[in-house]
Amino acid sequence: MSATSTQVQLVARPHGRPTPDCFRTLTLDLPPLTDGQVRVRNEFISVDPYMRGRMNDAKSYTPPYALGETMTGAAVGRVVESAAEGLAPGDTVLHTLGWRDVAQGDAAQFRVVPKLPGLPLSVHLGILGMTGYTAYVGLRKIAALTPGETVFVSGAAGAVGTAVGQIARRLGAARVVGSAGSAAKVDLLTSRYGYDAAFSYKDAPVRTQLPALVPDGVDVFFDNVGGDHLEAALDVMNRDGRVALCGAISAYNATTRAPGPDNMALLITQGLTLRGFTVGSHTELYGDFLRDMSGWLTAGEVVFDETVVDGIDHALDAFDALMAGANVGKMVVRIDPAV
Amino acid sequence: MSATSTQVQLVARPHGRPTPDCFRTLTLDLPPLTDGQVRVRNEFISVDPYMRGRMNDAKSYTPPYALGETMTGAAVGRVVESAAEGLAPGDTVLHTLGWRDVAQGDAAQFRVVPKLPGLPLSVHLGILGMTGYTAYVGLRKIAALTPGETVFVSGAAGAVGTAVGQIARRLGAARVVGSAGSAAKVDLLTSRYGYDAAFSYKDAPVRTQLPALVPDGVDVFFDNVGGDHLEAALDVMNRDGRVALCGAISAYNATTRAPGPDNMALLITQGLTLRGFTVGSHTELYGDFLRDMSGWLTAGEVVFDETVVDGIDHALDAFDALMAGANVGKMVVRIDPAV
Repeated sequence: MSATSTQVQLVARPHGRPTPDCFRTLTLDLPPLTDGQVRVRNEFISVDPYMRGRMNDAKSYTPPYALGETMTGAAVGRVVESAAEGLAPGDTVLHTLGWRDVAQGDAAQFRVVPKLPGLPLSVHLGILGMTGYTAYVGLRKIAALTPGETVFVSGAAGAVGTAVGQIARRLGAARVVGSAGSAAKVDLLTSRYGYDAAFSYKDAPVRTQLPALVPDGVDVFFDNVGGDHLEAALDVMNRDGRVALCGAISAYNATTRAPGPDNMALLITQGLTLRGFTVGSHTELYGDFLRDMSGWLTAGEVVFDETVVDGIDHALDAFDALMAGANVGKMVVRIDPAV
Repeated sequence: MSATSTQVQLVARPHGRPTPDCFRTLTLDLPPLTDGQVRVRNEFISVDPYMRGRMNDAKSYTPPYALGETMTGAAVGRVVESAAEGLAPGDTVLHTLGWRDVAQGDAAQFRVVPKLPGLPLSVHLGILGMTGYTAYVGLRKIAALTPGETVFVSGAAGAVGTAVGQIARRLGAARVVGSAGSAAKVDLLTSRYGYDAAFSYKDAPVRTQLPALVPDGVDVFFDNVGGDHLEAALDVMNRDGRVALCGAISAYNATTRAPGPDNMALLITQGLTLRGFTVGSHTELYGDFLRDMSGWLTAGEVVFDETVVDGIDHALDAFDALMAGANVGKMVVRIDPAV
C-alpha cells in the first residue's frame, strides 16, 4: 500500500485560462497515522467551474486557494488504513481534500457515503452530490418553480444543467428548453435529459434563437453561463419571472470585465427577480434532495452522465476541458485503484 | 361653474426627451352629467417618471398611452357636481384621469380621500399615496429590510427617495446613505430626510464616492436611477444583500440601450437578489402602510416636500423638470381653484 501521496498544487495565479506553469505536481511521503486519523485512497476527484474563481486572489464566497498548497475540492475514495473509531478499511467516504491520489487526516474530515448498487462512487460528486443539489435548490428555493411553468436552462449539457432539466420535469414544469455548445449536446438534451427543445449557442446569437422556442415566454431561467444568455432570457421573461444565477462560466476566464445585460429595465417593468446563489449557503433542503433524488435514480426517472479523465497527473487537463465545455455531464478525474 | 375641461393629450411618441410638439392642449365642452356620474375640479395632478415609459409604444407593466387621448395618471380634486349617490359637492376624491382641470365620469372612477388637518390634498399623490407606498413596499417586501442594516438609496431627493430614507429609519435601519444631483439636495437629505450621509453624483463617479460612506457595506439598495448607481452599489453589497429596483430614470429618456453593470458575477459570489417592482403589483401591505404612514405624519416623524408647478398648461414643463431632476420631493401640478 502506498505511503506516498501525489498532489497537484497551485503555485501561481493564472491570468485568463490556467496554464500548466501555474501548477506543480509532487509526490509526498506520508507519515504514519496518528490516533484518530485515516488514510483514504481516492477513486474520483471532482473538478468544478467554481475552482476558477478560487485561483484568483479576490473576494468571493470561498477564500482563494493559497499558493503552494494542494488544490482542495470534493473527492470520494475508500479507507485503506484507519486509526479512528467508526471508520474501517473499505469504507467509502466523501471529503474535500481535493487533487491528490491519497488523502490522510482526522476522521472528522471524512463522511461515509453508501456504495449504491449499480452506481459508481462518483455519483456522490455529481447527481447525488453538490452538482445535483445545486440544480435542486436552484429550482425549488431560488427560482421557486411551480407546476405548469416554462424553464430555460443555459449551459444545459453541463453537470448541473443535465440535472436541472430532469428535476424541472419532476417538479412539474410544462416546458423545458436548454442551450448547449454543440449539435451533439443539443441532441442529448432532448433525447436523454428531458428537454423539450434545445439549441446550440454557437449556431447563432441566443437572442435570435431563443424566442421561437419559448412561445409562452419563460417563467424560470436557470443560468449557468451569464453574458448573452442572460440578456436574451430577460427579453422573453414573463411577468414575475425568476432567474436563478448559478454560474457565469462565460466570464470565469475573462481578463476584462464584460458589460451586463442592456435590458435591465425589464426587471422593473416585468417585476423580475434575479438571485445569485451558491449551494453552500442553502443547506436546508439537503434532506429533501437526498430523498427525492435517490428515489428518482432508483426509479430510473433521472439519468446522468460523466466525463471521466484518468489520472491525478491529468487533473488540470480535466479542469481545462471542463472550462472549454468538452464535458457532457459531471467531469471527474478517476484515480486507478490498482496503481 | 365651468362646463369645459382643459386637457393635455399625447399626439406623437417622443424620441428621447419629450418635446412640446408631441402634445396638444385643448378645451372641451363637457356634456351634462348622466345618472351615476360626478364632475370633479382637480386641485393637484401628479407627474411621475413611469409616464415616460407609457409614452413609448412598447410592452411595459402598463399599456402605452394612446395617441390623441388625454394623458392619464393620478390626480386629486373636489366634487363640484354630482348625479351619483354617495358623492356630494365638496367631497375630496382621488382618481386616475390625469392631465385635465376638470374630470367627469362614473362615480366608480373616484375614491373619496380625507382632507387631513394641516396637510395639503396633494399628500394623496405623494407621501400618503403611490409615492409613499412605493417606498414602503420596496423596503418592507421587496428588499425585506431588517433592523440594523445599512441602506443605500439612489436619487434620494426625489419623491420616493425622500420617503425611503425616513421609512428605513422607522423600520430600524442602522445607517442610511443617499445620492442626489446637487449640493443643495445633498444638504436636505442629511438635514431633513433622515439620511446619515449623502453625496452628489455629479461631483465624481458613484464608484469613487460610495465606498467611503458605507464602511460596513450595503445590505439593502433602493435604486431609483440604475446605470452607474447600480454598478457601484453591487461592488459594496454585503452577502445576501437585496436590491429593490424601483426606477431607472437614468435610462428613461435614452434612445439607445445602455449596457448593464459589469459586475453581475457578484450576484452569485455574494448571494445577492435584484428584484424589480412596480407598486401596482404589491397591494397587500396597503393597509399597513396607511396605518403606519398616517401615524408617522401625525407624530411629525416623517416629513415631506413638494415641488409645485401651477397650471394645466404647464403640465409638460413639470414633467420635463421632473425628468431633469429639478424637483425636491413630489412634483405636482396645481390647478388654481379660482379659475
